[in-house]
Amino acid sequence: MVMALIRERRMAQPALTIASLLRDPTLRETCGQWLREGRYELVDLGGQPSPGAALEDRWDGFDAVLLEQGLLSRDTMQQLWGKGLVLPTVILGPVTGLVEYHAAEVHLAKDQLEQLSYSLDAAISRFLRRGQSMGPDDANEIGWAEKWRFSNRLKERLGYLGVFYKRDPSRFFRNLPPAERNILLQSLERTYRDLLISYFRDPVAANQALESFVNTVFFSDIPITKTVEIHMNLIDEFWNLLKLKGRKNDFLRDYRLALMDVLANLCEMYRRSLPPEPLLEAIEPAAQLGALKQEIC
Amino acid sequence: MVMALIRERRMAQPALTIASLLRDPTLRETCGQWLREGRYELVDLGGQPSPGAALEDRWDGFDAVLLEQGLLSRDTMQQLWGKGLVLPTVILGPVTGLVEYHAAEVHLAKDQLEQLSYSLDAAISRFLRRGQSMGPDDANEIGWAEKWRFSNRLKERLGYLGVFYKRDPSRFFRNLPPAERNILLQSLERTYRDLLISYFRDPVAANQALESFVNTVFFSDIPITKTVEIHMNLIDEFWNLLKLKGRKNDFLRDYRLALMDVLANLCEMYRRSLPPEPLLEAIEPAAQLGALKQEIC
Repeated sequence: MVMALIRERRMAQPALTIASLLRDPTLRETCGQWLREGRYELVDLGGQPSPGAALEDRWDGFDAVLLEQGLLSRDTMQQLWGKGLVLPTVILGPVTGLVEYHAAEVHLAKDQLEQLSYSLDAAISRFLRRGQSMGPDDANEIGWAEKWRFSNRLKERLGYLGVFYKRDPSRFFRNLPPAERNILLQSLERTYRDLLISYFRDPVAANQALESFVNTVFFSDIPITKTVEIHMNLIDEFWNLLKLKGRKNDFLRDYRLALMDVLANLCEMYRRSLPPEPLLEAIEPAAQLGALKQEIC
Repeated sequence: MVMALIRERRMAQPALTIASLLRDPTLRETCGQWLREGRYELVDLGGQPSPGAALEDRWDGFDAVLLEQGLLSRDTMQQLWGKGLVLPTVILGPVTGLVEYHAAEVHLAKDQLEQLSYSLDAAISRFLRRGQSMGPDDANEIGWAEKWRFSNRLKERLGYLGVFYKRDPSRFFRNLPPAERNILLQSLERTYRDLLISYFRDPVAANQALESFVNTVFFSDIPITKTVEIHMNLIDEFWNLLKLKGRKNDFLRDYRLALMDVLANLCEMYRRSLPPEPLLEAIEPAAQLGALKQEIC
């Protein structure tokens, strides 16, 4: 009953139109599979002779960008940025820790595409927050007024309440069919493995893996105990591997720092997602509430 | 402007009437100081010859109970429980880890009364959640229908939205005057010290200290980095102390487990405080939403 209603609602909701800038045909196909179900409309620009120009031409029709790393040159991206052409963006490719396009972009490794819809959620959420954190002065200074226009359009299209991007309960871990749950968990394990492997030797890459992991855990509303379980299972696996090879494994305890880092980031994400003045909503007249919202935000 | 409106709202809101069962006069005075500002009305029953009977007589007038450990006998508490006389309760005294009165009670050490208002918030919130988690069968079986009556009255009095107890922004850490911020931080440090000291040798007591710490951090909306900072400062202090005494300090790294435990609990508390179906609220007609809420909760 719940799921039927959720599906019904989703059909009535306009789809997200996503500019797809992917060159690799397998990647294109897999992304299509993970963004099915009518909520996303992928518009393929990756096969165009000049994908950057095509993106610019049809800019107004898009809500988000899906970009294969290396497909747009650094110059092209800087040009888009300079013209205020910025949208929520997910970048697919090796997780290097480098910013490719803009500060609110989200990265996802190509072997973790099962998390793509959650990464898109995260990209939209980060984009909106960044817009909110810019004052009117910033807007004049670096062209954010332009960028803002898209943010507001996105808000209208998706029916947001205030500045918070809402999670979609139909994609919550507990509401997925068992088979999809397993696929999502395995994908999360791969992300967490990337995080552990790079945690001490490449902090910037580790940070991107951490963000990717936290985004998916948040948007799929996975219980915290499950996150701790993923950590424990991987550490157990590493421990057994080292034991087999007759190596020391004391240092594995230091990986607790990685889990602490994940939990702290996840916690802060949840904290910032609580409406800032919930008690007031119930009591204040609407006009006063509007004024308050402006001041508190 | 915000604070003025918040204060104005608070004045219009009925005060919480709290049955105060404290024998120690200093404790009574200190609690009065930390529950000032017109939001709380303390009714002193601790000086009565039979505080348990006094509490029962005037039961209907109370929203919460403040109880000094040992003031009511175990028999008296079991009698109250048997009659369905249960209210949100904060118990003051040594943190032993034992349940004194009922499963939703909250414990606070006497040297941490600066956190009393947050503990009361936590007691109300836990009480409401427990009520929500009982089905109609449970209600008939163990007298929860009776107990529920108070929960609903509390809801009406405090203007709740749904099942979620809302935090009071005027008591958020960032909205406190600097002096009060310091006092709160020092109090939290004492709680965290209790947690570390008992973490490996008395897990049940550690758990109560942990709950107390997490409650205050949540209801005062303290940033997660601040929590991590409290941990680091205490570990540094312990480290220096052990170094001075010429003792080993390697084992201090194991205290990371305590921080992980805190972060995991805090994260889960935040997670459960997000409204369960925010996206739907913006789109579904009210009637459908009602049906959905019933099913999802």
